[in-house]
Amino acid sequence: MSIEIHPAVASCLRGFEVPDRLGFGTVMAPVMFRARCQDGCWSTGELVPYGPLALDPAAKVLHYAQSCFEGMKAYRTRDGGVSLFRPERNAARMAHSAERLCMPPVPESLFMEGVRTVTAYCANLVPASSGESLYLRPFLLGTQPDLSVSASASYEFYVIASPSEAYHAGNMRLWVEREDSRAAVGGTGDSKVGGNYAASLLSIARLKKRGYDQSLWLNPGNRRTVDELSGMNFFAVIDGELHTPALSGSILEGVTRDSLITLARELGYTVRELDIDIEELLARVRDGSCSEAFACGTAAIVSPISVLGDDNGEYLLSSVPGPVAVCLREALLDIQEGRAEDRFGWMRPVEVVDINDQ
Amino acid sequence: MSIEIHPAVASCLRGFEVPDRLGFGTVMAPVMFRARCQDGCWSTGELVPYGPLALDPAAKVLHYAQSCFEGMKAYRTRDGGVSLFRPERNAARMAHSAERLCMPPVPESLFMEGVRTVTAYCANLVPASSGESLYLRPFLLGTQPDLSVSASASYEFYVIASPSEAYHAGNMRLWVEREDSRAAVGGTGDSKVGGNYAASLLSIARLKKRGYDQSLWLNPGNRRTVDELSGMNFFAVIDGELHTPALSGSILEGVTRDSLITLARELGYTVRELDIDIEELLARVRDGSCSEAFACGTAAIVSPISVLGDDNGEYLLSSVPGPVAVCLREALLDIQEGRAEDRFGWMRPVEVVDINDQ
Ligand SMILES: Cc1ncc(COP(=O)(O)O)c(C=O)c1O
Ligand SMILES: Cc1ncc(COP(=O)(O)O)c(C=O)c1O
Repeated sequence: MSIEIHPAVASCLRGFEVPDRLGFGTVMAPVMFRARCQDGCWSTGELVPYGPLALDPAAKVLHYAQSCFEGMKAYRTRDGGVSLFRPERNAARMAHSAERLCMPPVPESLFMEGVRTVTAYCANLVPASSGESLYLRPFLLGTQPDLSVSASASYEFYVIASPSEAYHAGNMRLWVEREDSRAAVGGTGDSKVGGNYAASLLSIARLKKRGYDQSLWLNPGNRRTVDELSGMNFFAVIDGELHTPALSGSILEGVTRDSLITLARELGYTVRELDIDIEELLARVRDGSCSEAFACGTAAIVSPISVLGDDNGEYLLSSVPGPVAVCLREALLDIQEGRAEDRFGWMRPVEVVDINDQ
Repeated sequence: MSIEIHPAVASCLRGFEVPDRLGFGTVMAPVMFRARCQDGCWSTGELVPYGPLALDPAAKVLHYAQSCFEGMKAYRTRDGGVSLFRPERNAARMAHSAERLCMPPVPESLFMEGVRTVTAYCANLVPASSGESLYLRPFLLGTQPDLSVSASASYEFYVIASPSEAYHAGNMRLWVEREDSRAAVGGTGDSKVGGNYAASLLSIARLKKRGYDQSLWLNPGNRRTVDELSGMNFFAVIDGELHTPALSGSILEGVTRDSLITLARELGYTVRELDIDIEELLARVRDGSCSEAFACGTAAIVSPISVLGDDNGEYLLSSVPGPVAVCLREALLDIQEGRAEDRFGWMRPVEVVDINDQ
């Protein structure tokens, strides 16, 4: 690797203490990875102390939201090592997101170098309790200072990291969002770009006041079929089968979603990717033929849903995690945390750097 | 005004030379206005030297595009003074955009203080040729360092300025965009937020390769009626009447659009705000009953359209600016540049600060 390590990196890491309460994405690791791209040419990557970015006030990202990101984790495995989970999928999805916003895709090798380097140096910060991990956040910004509505000529790629608890505990109360949309048909819903999340903030704030945790987004074209949550994919167990919305173009293709589909099939479940009509889903929750629903994502792993609410009232699921959610969560974490054989070839162990040798 | 002026402001301004070729939004004035908001409380505004913003790598704006902006101009008027054009409209629109993204609206008084202060100190940078102006860019960013998908607790408001030529010369070639959307129904299309512009960059890049200048966006719900351009509203002259898309929820309510409607009615034109079916529009361009089409916006003023293109071919309008566009552009610029009486009460003269007195 031809990456540059800033001389202050080792002392930053040695001086850092992980607080007792982690939360999610609030405690930041003291180092970060950085690379720059000018007119299509990428610089060498560097590992540098975590610190403020100096952005020109006219930088495209600040006005035209030319930015995309990824979310992934480094897991502490049973043998004491540290591994990434299917990182090539995140590299590919970030390339897809970048292209949707006219940004140069971060080369897979540079992306992998970034997440591996941060993980290797921050290995001591990867928590050891099950469900906890080092959350990694690669992101790409258009930085050219120029107020015309056009793609940036210069970009910066970063990987920052945050030792974190799992994002959601479960028992989630979801509000069926029938007014707002997070992304359009023909828009950016299948890309991990800032604008989708900005568009979802108002709905989240509104439903929190009503005592809910998350919005359940409908397809913006038909406003009738289920898409996903603001940061998670959706699953329901209907008549004993596992149903999840098909990739409609306005849904993010979750790495967790894909992994759970594989694991569920291995466990003998029938899994269908299909259109889920919201009215039918609510009726099936009422009549009991939908026995479980849960959301999934890197941050949240598998989070059982206990209530779906809309203007007509509440549709109640069990407040105890259902058997399918429990079993899939366990099967996934068993692989991620090294308790089960990596039979699908998903894990990428990272060679740890001992900062005391530096 | 209780605003703080940084001691280096006067020397920054004295040392600044305006280049001969301005372009649009590339030459930045050497000072900027700044205010901060923490948990709903706004700081005093400051005028400071233009320079990089220090943003935490985990700042919400960089990941979740929690940002909105405005575009407005300070005009050199015939009497040698400098005036803003309907700035209260921009203040109100920015408050609307902020609320859509769960941001605290910038108080009108602070917004006005920001644009007035920058204009007052940069008065020497306001170009004097007709059509040129000092473009002002107020913007608001969510700055809290926290990776959870929720609204920021801290914000920064800036006003930067750019001495500029008019954005588009006219003779525009528009591509009817039938694949992509810039914003969803129930999305953020009626707000001036970064994500809308990010979503439009790919379409713009694609059509530039085909020899076009701008996308003509259709309503994302019906994909049949005309919405607007990426940064301008749309008008067509049909059977001698002026038609413009009604505010559908996915269109930005342009200050120029509103002003042209008022001026056109004063000039005796019938103006209709209505649904414009794209197929009918193209047919009317072909049969000649649509005699003119043009786009309008603060940056571009009035920009005649000479071609509409789609997969079926090209629909040609005159390559010479049409009489309605010419007459409305003149009527608007006459007020903005002080050659005509300000009969609608649109102009806000700014009291200039002589930096040599500082
Ligand atoms: C909108 C959205 N859907 C789904 C997911 C789940 O994707 P993954 O399983 O890759 O984390 C995420 C993010 O993590 C997301 O932001
Ligand atoms: C999407 C969009 N539509 C229309 C306009 C025109 O608005 P205004 O006349 O206020 O400049 C703008 C911006 O300036 C815009 O960004």
